[in-house]
Amino acid sequence: MTTGITLILGGARSGKSRMAEQLVTALPGPWVYIATAQAFDAEMQDRIRQHQGGRAEGWVTVEEPLDLVAALTRANATARPVLVDCLTLWLTNVMLAGREVEAEAAKLIDLLPGLTMPVVLVGNEVGLGIVPDNRLSRLFRDHAGRLHQDIARIADKVLFMAAGLPMQLK
Amino acid sequence: MTTGITLILGGARSGKSRMAEQLVTALPGPWVYIATAQAFDAEMQDRIRQHQGGRAEGWVTVEEPLDLVAALTRANATARPVLVDCLTLWLTNVMLAGREVEAEAAKLIDLLPGLTMPVVLVGNEVGLGIVPDNRLSRLFRDHAGRLHQDIARIADKVLFMAAGLPMQLK
Amino acid sequence: MTTGITLILGGARSGKSRMAEQLVTALPGPWVYIATAQAFDAEMQDRIRQHQGGRAEGWVTVEEPLDLVAALTRANATARPVLVDCLTLWLTNVMLAGREVEAEAAKLIDLLPGLTMPVVLVGNEVGLGIVPDNRLSRLFRDHAGRLHQDIARIADKVLFMAAGLPMQLK
Repeated sequence: MTTGITLILGGARSGKSRMAEQLVTALPGPWVYIATAQAFDAEMQDRIRQHQGGRAEGWVTVEEPLDLVAALTRANATARPVLVDCLTLWLTNVMLAGREVEAEAAKLIDLLPGLTMPVVLVGNEVGLGIVPDNRLSRLFRDHAGRLHQDIARIADKVLFMAAGLPMQLK
Repeated sequence: MTTGITLILGGARSGKSRMAEQLVTALPGPWVYIATAQAFDAEMQDRIRQHQGGRAEGWVTVEEPLDLVAALTRANATARPVLVDCLTLWLTNVMLAGREVEAEAAKLIDLLPGLTMPVVLVGNEVGLGIVPDNRLSRLFRDHAGRLHQDIARIADKVLFMAAGLPMQLK
Repeated sequence: MTTGITLILGGARSGKSRMAEQLVTALPGPWVYIATAQAFDAEMQDRIRQHQGGRAEGWVTVEEPLDLVAALTRANATARPVLVDCLTLWLTNVMLAGREVEAEAAKLIDLLPGLTMPVVLVGNEVGLGIVPDNRLSRLFRDHAGRLHQDIARIADKVLFMAAGLPMQLK
């Protein structure tokens, strides 16, 4: 059974969200879905709608693009299993909002071990391609890689998804 | 021994094709090589020639950039082991030809479980870098990821290659 | 205990260097650090400084952007454990210097099995994103993939890092 902290990494369309939902819904519901996506354009709206359409009954959706620590703290008070989908968009939002990434990440890392409900976090692995041309993309993948390492260190379980199948790293 | 459906995933120059050829040639020949590559330019011709040069005697090569289902159906009638190299170029060809990707992929997924000869399919994992700038690339990696997941679900064996070495996902 | 040749692959910020340092410093020191990075700009100087700052006492640092074979041969004479960080920058330097990559890689592959000291080599996996737009990047990831395969073939141990955690490929 999934308890504690689970980190699910993988590339685009690797089955991360589906695996996360399976792990969470194997626990007694209702479940809290913290969605960090912001729909800036039609393509993003489509992607969000597709994700929502795939989710079963019994989910309480919380949209929180930025204050992930606040959303997790509120969810923890209800003692319900929580899915955070995803860390990568949250990080993007933090950077776009001009907030201090290291400080925001540190607050999250401080919070996680103290949570009493099971929490499953989804993150996109973005560091396995050619070094990006632009500085912001390089900075972004540095931040993402560091955040994943920090969460993996305190996680109880870490999965790396490919083609819908998990490799267990921890 | 390799029977049924095997999916071999990996990045560029990860040893996918070589592993696929090893698995197929461990079975009694002759073997059918379904090549989906189309040589649009000199660089691509070079890449195709290098791949061909590396293959041993005993292979019957079928060039089929688009109608993979037809090529597999014909190959199945001969009861020979088949290698499909690769799904990624086939998907590219389907998109460039303006065909409906979901429909073409569905036909392939319908066909595969009914084949009686062993079949090894090679696919490029392309979803582990930074989100691409252009919409077509994003669409492409969505299609590729979904296709790999669909094939992995019905496959008997799934390998993820890195530096010429396999990780068995299934 | 780490002896012979170890290859550590992974994406950006996957914890490759830290893992390499852990393996090397588990052996009796002092240890030789062969740094292949060249600081062309402020960003690169920053990255190098961060890496250096993280290293403990007991390291002898050798900066060698191009003549890796010579640096390894000299280090071998001292019988000290060696860390090469990283193959990817070395390959970049070889290409930028207009040297023949295949010939330089062949010299390295010839040298490695004869070394008597333990050597840990770090490489960036760059082949798991969308096919790059420009020819040089495609060429680079072909070279990197082939080099990793060649080293993996003669290595005693191969690790693939993600989120700071190792998957053992060999």
